[in-house]
Amino acid sequence: MKERMVVMGPDCGLHGESVESEGRRTGGLRRLYFLGPQGSFTHQAAIDAARFLGGDPQPCEDAGRIIEHVEAGEGWGVIAWENNVEGYVVPNLDMLIDSADVAGCARLSVDISFDAFVRPGDTSPLNQVCAHPHGLAQCRGFARRRGLEPSPASSNAAACRDIRSGQVALGPSICGELYGLTTLEEAVQDYEGASTDFLVVAPRGDVMDLPRHRGEYETVIAFVPLSTGPGVLADLLDVLRDAGLNMTGFISRPIKGRAGTYSFIATVDAAPWQSGFRDVLERVTSHGDWVKTLAVYPRRERPHPPVDAWMLPRGGVRGGQIDGKNVRRELLW
Amino acid sequence: MKERMVVMGPDCGLHGESVESEGRRTGGLRRLYFLGPQGSFTHQAAIDAARFLGGDPQPCEDAGRIIEHVEAGEGWGVIAWENNVEGYVVPNLDMLIDSADVAGCARLSVDISFDAFVRPGDTSPLNQVCAHPHGLAQCRGFARRRGLEPSPASSNAAACRDIRSGQVALGPSICGELYGLTTLEEAVQDYEGASTDFLVVAPRGDVMDLPRHRGEYETVIAFVPLSTGPGVLADLLDVLRDAGLNMTGFISRPIKGRAGTYSFIATVDAAPWQSGFRDVLERVTSHGDWVKTLAVYPRRERPHPPVDAWMLPRGGVRGGQIDGKNVRRELLW
Repeated sequence: MKERMVVMGPDCGLHGESVESEGRRTGGLRRLYFLGPQGSFTHQAAIDAARFLGGDPQPCEDAGRIIEHVEAGEGWGVIAWENNVEGYVVPNLDMLIDSADVAGCARLSVDISFDAFVRPGDTSPLNQVCAHPHGLAQCRGFARRRGLEPSPASSNAAACRDIRSGQVALGPSICGELYGLTTLEEAVQDYEGASTDFLVVAPRGDVMDLPRHRGEYETVIAFVPLSTGPGVLADLLDVLRDAGLNMTGFISRPIKGRAGTYSFIATVDAAPWQSGFRDVLERVTSHGDWVKTLAVYPRRERPHPPVDAWMLPRGGVRGGQIDGKNVRRELLW
Repeated sequence: MKERMVVMGPDCGLHGESVESEGRRTGGLRRLYFLGPQGSFTHQAAIDAARFLGGDPQPCEDAGRIIEHVEAGEGWGVIAWENNVEGYVVPNLDMLIDSADVAGCARLSVDISFDAFVRPGDTSPLNQVCAHPHGLAQCRGFARRRGLEPSPASSNAAACRDIRSGQVALGPSICGELYGLTTLEEAVQDYEGASTDFLVVAPRGDVMDLPRHRGEYETVIAFVPLSTGPGVLADLLDVLRDAGLNMTGFISRPIKGRAGTYSFIATVDAAPWQSGFRDVLERVTSHGDWVKTLAVYPRRERPHPPVDAWMLPRGGVRGGQIDGKNVRRELLW
C-alpha cells in the first residue's frame, strides 16, 4: 500500500507530552479507539495517528462505542470523516453533532489501496480471492487477470485472518504484518486515487488544552437556524461572507428523528478563537441560532486551481447564454 | 416488508401514454434500468416505479451503465439518491451532475426492511444466516435470538438464490417471490425507520415532454460559481432568498478530478419554469456561473414541525448565551 499521511507537520502543536493527561492511558499511552476489526482501513488510520499524536490503538465493535469511550474520558478516538468518492461519512457526522463532549482535533488521509496476500510458503494453484464485497468490487480487474473466483468475507481483515491454501486475500497493507502473510501484489484496486479522511476525536477539555499555534486552521461547525423559511441559510452565510471567511465544505442534514428540521455543517478556513470568526459566532448565537464547533485542526494543504470552463461537468449552462433550446434543455424550464 | 411509496399521486402528470415514446420499449414497455442483481432494494424501487410510471425493470451491472442506457435513448433508469441515515448517494449524484443528457423526473422512497427466508418445506434445524455483510450487520438481533451463525454473501439476492437447507437468507420482501422461498419472519432488522429515496431518470427531452401540472414541484439544481473566494456561496444563496425560494437540501461536492474546485447542489421548493425560480436561474447564469438542473419532481409530503429547543442536538450554544466557560467549550474558542 502506498500510504500517505497529510495534515500534521512538526509545528502543528499536537505532539509532545503536554497534551497527555493521567488516567487515560494504558501502560503509559493514551488509548486510541478505532472501528475494528484489526486490519481495517480505520486501523491503518489509527496507526498513522498514533505515530504523530502518540497513543495505543484499540479496536472497538461499533462507532457509537468510540464516542462513548471518549465521553467517558477513557481515551481518544479515530473516526472516518469524508471519502473523496462517497462523500461525508454521514452516520459519524451525525454522531459527532449529537455527542455531549467530543470534538475533532486532527484530520488525516488514508489511501484506499488493497494489497493481495497469500499464506506464507503456499505453492498450491491460486483459485479464489477473498474480501469484503466492497473490496471484491474494487479489485475486479485483478481477480479477472489472475483467473480467481470471488468469495465474500464479512471483512477484509477476516478474509486475511482466515485465508486458506489456494486463496488470495485482499486488504490494507497492515493486514500482511498483522496476520503474517506474504504479499503477492501491491495496490491491486481497479482505480487509483480513492482516499478516506479520518478525524481524531477527543474530549472537549483536551482539545481546548492543545497548544494553539499561529499557523492556519480549519474549523467544522454545525448551525441550526431556529427560524425557518426562505433565506435562513442565506442570512447565515452572509455573516460568514461579510467576515471574509472562506468555506470549503458544506452539507445540510435532517435533525435526528425530526424530519423537516435541518442542521448545516460548514468547513471554514479559520479557527474559532481568531477574532473574525469569533465575531461571526457571537453574531449567529446572539441572533438566536444554535451553534456547535465539531472540529478544529491544522489547515490541510489544498490545491487552488483557477476555475476554468474546461473542468466543468458536461452539459449545463454558463454565463450569458440564457436563451435558446439548449438552455431550456439544461435548465428544464 | 412494510412497503411504502411516496411522491406520486394521481395528479402528478407522470401517468399515461403521453410520456411513452416509440423505440424505447421492450414488448411495448419502456425499459427501466436498475442496479442489479434482481432482488436488491433498487429492484424493489424499480418495481414500485414501474407500477406508477409503467416500464419493464431491467437489471444492470453498474450504475454508470444505467446512465449510458438512458443517454443512448434505450430506456429510463432508477438510481439510489438519498438515504435517511447515510445521506446522499454521492457517486450517483456525481454521475448525474456529469451526465450529458439525463435528468430526474420522479422521486420515490423504499423502506430498508429485511425479511427472513427459508427453503420451502425445509425441516432441518436452522443454524446459519446468509446475507451481504451490511444485511447481517443490520439484523444482528434476529441472528442472536434464533442462534444463527452469520455467513456473508456477495449480495442479499445471492444469499436468497443460493440458500441451502438449514440456512436462513435475509433480503427485501421481493426475494421471496423471485426465488420461490418461504417467509420465516418479516421485518427482522434491528432498527425501524431506515429508508432510501430513489430518482427515476430519463433523457432530458422526455422530462421536458412530461405534462406540467399546476401542483407543487421540487427541483435539484447544481451550481458551479466561476469566481472563487469568500462569499461566493453566500452571494448565490442571497439570490434564492431574495426570490423567496425555500431550500430543503444542500451539499457541496469537489468537481471530479479537480480537488479545490466545488459544485453546490441545492433542492428547492419550486419548478424551474415558475417565474420566480426562472428569474433566479437567469440572474445566476448572467452572472457567469455554471448551472444545470438535475431533477424536477412533484413535491414530497414533508412534515413542518416548529423548531423548538428540545429537538436540538446535545451540547452547543443557543441564543444570547455568548459568555462563560460552557460557551468556550462548545465553540472551542
